[in-house]
Amino acid sequence: MSATEFRRIGVVAKRSSREAIQMAHELKTWLTERGLEVALDEVSARTGKLSSTQLFDHAEQYDLVVVLGGDGTLLSVARSLHSDIPILGVNMGRLGFLTEVARTDLYPVLEDVFAGRYEVEERSMLDVELRRESGRSHSFRVLNDAVIGKSALARIIELTLEVDGHLVARYRADGLIVATPTGSTAYNLSAGGPIVNPRLPLVVLTPICPHTLSQRPLVLPATSRIDVTLETPREEVFLTLDGQEGKGMDYRDVVTIGTSERRARLIRTSDHSFYDSLRGKLHWGE
Amino acid sequence: MSATEFRRIGVVAKRSSREAIQMAHELKTWLTERGLEVALDEVSARTGKLSSTQLFDHAEQYDLVVVLGGDGTLLSVARSLHSDIPILGVNMGRLGFLTEVARTDLYPVLEDVFAGRYEVEERSMLDVELRRESGRSHSFRVLNDAVIGKSALARIIELTLEVDGHLVARYRADGLIVATPTGSTAYNLSAGGPIVNPRLPLVVLTPICPHTLSQRPLVLPATSRIDVTLETPREEVFLTLDGQEGKGMDYRDVVTIGTSERRARLIRTSDHSFYDSLRGKLHWGE
Amino acid sequence: MSATEFRRIGVVAKRSSREAIQMAHELKTWLTERGLEVALDEVSARTGKLSSTQLFDHAEQYDLVVVLGGDGTLLSVARSLHSDIPILGVNMGRLGFLTEVARTDLYPVLEDVFAGRYEVEERSMLDVELRRESGRSHSFRVLNDAVIGKSALARIIELTLEVDGHLVARYRADGLIVATPTGSTAYNLSAGGPIVNPRLPLVVLTPICPHTLSQRPLVLPATSRIDVTLETPREEVFLTLDGQEGKGMDYRDVVTIGTSERRARLIRTSDHSFYDSLRGKLHWGE
Amino acid sequence: MSATEFRRIGVVAKRSSREAIQMAHELKTWLTERGLEVALDEVSARTGKLSSTQLFDHAEQYDLVVVLGGDGTLLSVARSLHSDIPILGVNMGRLGFLTEVARTDLYPVLEDVFAGRYEVEERSMLDVELRRESGRSHSFRVLNDAVIGKSALARIIELTLEVDGHLVARYRADGLIVATPTGSTAYNLSAGGPIVNPRLPLVVLTPICPHTLSQRPLVLPATSRIDVTLETPREEVFLTLDGQEGKGMDYRDVVTIGTSERRARLIRTSDHSFYDSLRGKLHWGE
Repeated sequence: MSATEFRRIGVVAKRSSREAIQMAHELKTWLTERGLEVALDEVSARTGKLSSTQLFDHAEQYDLVVVLGGDGTLLSVARSLHSDIPILGVNMGRLGFLTEVARTDLYPVLEDVFAGRYEVEERSMLDVELRRESGRSHSFRVLNDAVIGKSALARIIELTLEVDGHLVARYRADGLIVATPTGSTAYNLSAGGPIVNPRLPLVVLTPICPHTLSQRPLVLPATSRIDVTLETPREEVFLTLDGQEGKGMDYRDVVTIGTSERRARLIRTSDHSFYDSLRGKLHWGE
Repeated sequence: MSATEFRRIGVVAKRSSREAIQMAHELKTWLTERGLEVALDEVSARTGKLSSTQLFDHAEQYDLVVVLGGDGTLLSVARSLHSDIPILGVNMGRLGFLTEVARTDLYPVLEDVFAGRYEVEERSMLDVELRRESGRSHSFRVLNDAVIGKSALARIIELTLEVDGHLVARYRADGLIVATPTGSTAYNLSAGGPIVNPRLPLVVLTPICPHTLSQRPLVLPATSRIDVTLETPREEVFLTLDGQEGKGMDYRDVVTIGTSERRARLIRTSDHSFYDSLRGKLHWGE
Repeated sequence: MSATEFRRIGVVAKRSSREAIQMAHELKTWLTERGLEVALDEVSARTGKLSSTQLFDHAEQYDLVVVLGGDGTLLSVARSLHSDIPILGVNMGRLGFLTEVARTDLYPVLEDVFAGRYEVEERSMLDVELRRESGRSHSFRVLNDAVIGKSALARIIELTLEVDGHLVARYRADGLIVATPTGSTAYNLSAGGPIVNPRLPLVVLTPICPHTLSQRPLVLPATSRIDVTLETPREEVFLTLDGQEGKGMDYRDVVTIGTSERRARLIRTSDHSFYDSLRGKLHWGE
Repeated sequence: MSATEFRRIGVVAKRSSREAIQMAHELKTWLTERGLEVALDEVSARTGKLSSTQLFDHAEQYDLVVVLGGDGTLLSVARSLHSDIPILGVNMGRLGFLTEVARTDLYPVLEDVFAGRYEVEERSMLDVELRRESGRSHSFRVLNDAVIGKSALARIIELTLEVDGHLVARYRADGLIVATPTGSTAYNLSAGGPIVNPRLPLVVLTPICPHTLSQRPLVLPATSRIDVTLETPREEVFLTLDGQEGKGMDYRDVVTIGTSERRARLIRTSDHSFYDSLRGKLHWGE
């Protein structure tokens, strides 16, 4: 998108952060002064008593969405957008894997963006469908991961994994993580999964505390159709989306996962690469 | 205990197993014919309409308790006994780490026991106390493990670990397993913990999916006083005992764990050692 | 390749296996009777005193190479071929990840192949270049992995990893495995790396016993240029290719690794998939 | 030992560190001025042209040995002492697990020691015997670990583990680490083994990159007799002691390991505990 084409900007601040909300108000002023149309998330708008403010709506079209918060806020925005709008993630303190822009760099970075000095990094997302035995189904989209996990009080659960119609594994485990490359550095990493370059066309499956010790993380093509069936009756099991939304699962429910046609589009203005993030956040350079 | 001293025998069958309950009835007859007094668990007694049967009572004294079921049933009996009564564990199919006697060997093994040809293997247990901010507290005893874990929908939780009054770690994780040597081959193993010879005077602490990748399993003296504090408000967290009982935890609740003065006493009549179990169950000899 | 186009067949038996060599002689007769030209590996030819036999030459062109042995023999043939000749791998006993055809199925499978009832599965290989400080260099090609590892007596070594010119990590470790998807189920798996679908365009980097506990396996695009520099002087370090060939490394030597333009072409006549191998060999279906 | 009983002090500096050697000379002067007899390691003595200096001799008796260097120097001294002489470890920069005294604290700490304000922490050591098929044998003692490992060019090796005469495992692996609790934070940790409180009477066995994925670290009583047999002919395999000394192994050689009657005695003058070291060195408190 060339420099002159930005007209309508969405701004979404982390709900629970006063600082982020304060910054959203400042940013609104800054953008309005530049003649841009601004839509603000509801919590920020309400907090500022900005009654005449346009409210940000996931279903609408913007030229850019600025997220002020952490990786969590960005995940939530990316998941809910109805089209591939570029997102600029600004962290409020700790460097995130997704929100690489420091708050102090916000305005210089925006100048760069409006001057066309930026790149868009596309990240794959997953379409997740929970199909009930009853025939009902629920659809979701995630940027990090879909997790099928037992509740703390439940015993070990059994899951069947089929890939492209082939039976691959029966897991007796606490659960199973299905992650995008972007999600590889999130829950997947804590569960022993590999770190994946975010450009790669693949999906990572990592069992959580598997009973069968030979069950290791599995890397599959992004084009795979993944079906996970809950084989355990009467235990409390949940499907969790990006660690943020959840849905109870019942015996014989099937979760079908595949790479989405929708992609998250992250704006980058610096050379700071994925590898720099690894080195910085995981202390790989010490 | 010498051959002649067995008089009162408790028999506990796995609740959900018809076969185990059937076997309990047969065993009752067999023992009664030998002049022994038998107390049967309530479910078995009811199933057999054995109205005149003595009911097994955890608070009473027996010379021997025979458990017919799997490791789960034995854990439940061991946890609830009020004194160090010897337990004979009989599995109904799959060899367990705790129930090593095959159902087909039950009567020959009992002959051995009554003839004094047996050994008692003592297993350490943990006393677990959950202390609320309010001052209330709950006490438990476990043979395998106490687990502090988040529910499937909760985000990562933060726990502080103090040992003998020293701060040892802040965990950001799905949870923390505190296991006896006996429990080392249970949940602890799935979470990446080591396998421990059951005779050793120690406790194993294994974080579940820790966010800090350097947090590895920790082996402490059995005499340690272990305090784990829940530092995360507003998330659903549970203390689980032997994977069988649970209790909700609140922000700032403290779980204090130490080795119990009570021990589980398991009867062994064969040379089948802990090492044989490892080789057999984990295929270490292939 | 259509049914009629097979004319020249290479046959390579595992050197140390009498059975494989015996089978090579039988296969030579069988192929010759069908009017095909056969070249036999030198050891088999010598063993059979087949003085007039053509000797198999890696630099020459064949329509098919039949490997009788295990995965090791196939690796060695794949690595040395000068062009993308299809390979049919026959195992002499234990199912391999690469040699899926059982010896008892050899002739029926060959009938299928000559009748055109087969598919070719392409596997990526790595070009590996060892560049000395002196300016000299050595080139290799691998199907499984290139490993930079310390000798048993050496202390921990330090390696620097650069990817596409970015510094990614400094490893203090026993070594580093750079594996293809095919190699993911070999050494990489023992060192804690993920299992990768062999069709994926990627490379897996797994440190061996890293001192920095946050250093986890890393999955990179197949197009990456990977440079590993040995930063430790005076320790015995080797570059090993497919676990079969080795070369000593010196201080400041650089190993540069990238995906090869050459690919291994494996013949498949059955539906037996990669996922079936996992289930069978790793007991994932129990 | 009471305050007045220190008379003869050994001082050993890290060979390759000029700073440590310099410090050794200063310390010699400081101790001599206090009327104490000092023996200096040969390298330091030679460097200072201190021709009349007593040379430190592992076989002799001292009241205290001060080690100036890192954990490596202390390991080497502990291994070689012929009796249980207290050791004071001083690090020259980075905090070690064994050398907890900072160089800047050396003299105040020594004042404390001579005033009787210290404790002695006993650490278990292992007796290691390599028995050849020929009947010859070699004996060693280690404070951290004995490692049986293949050379970089060797293929996977097979080892048989027997404990107290029971077959426990057949390993196909890069090697096997047998570690004391002290050694649990060294190589054992990099290979996936647990961290052990150094007071515990136990031994940790951790396979290095095992082929059988169910082979996990194993914690055994200190009283165990551990026999490891090399079952692979014709590969280069070494027994390594504390990562510092090595000995080649041949087919069918047996390494027998048990806890030594000798113990390393480390002097502690501060409250800095094992748990503080973990928190500091592994960042467990972040």
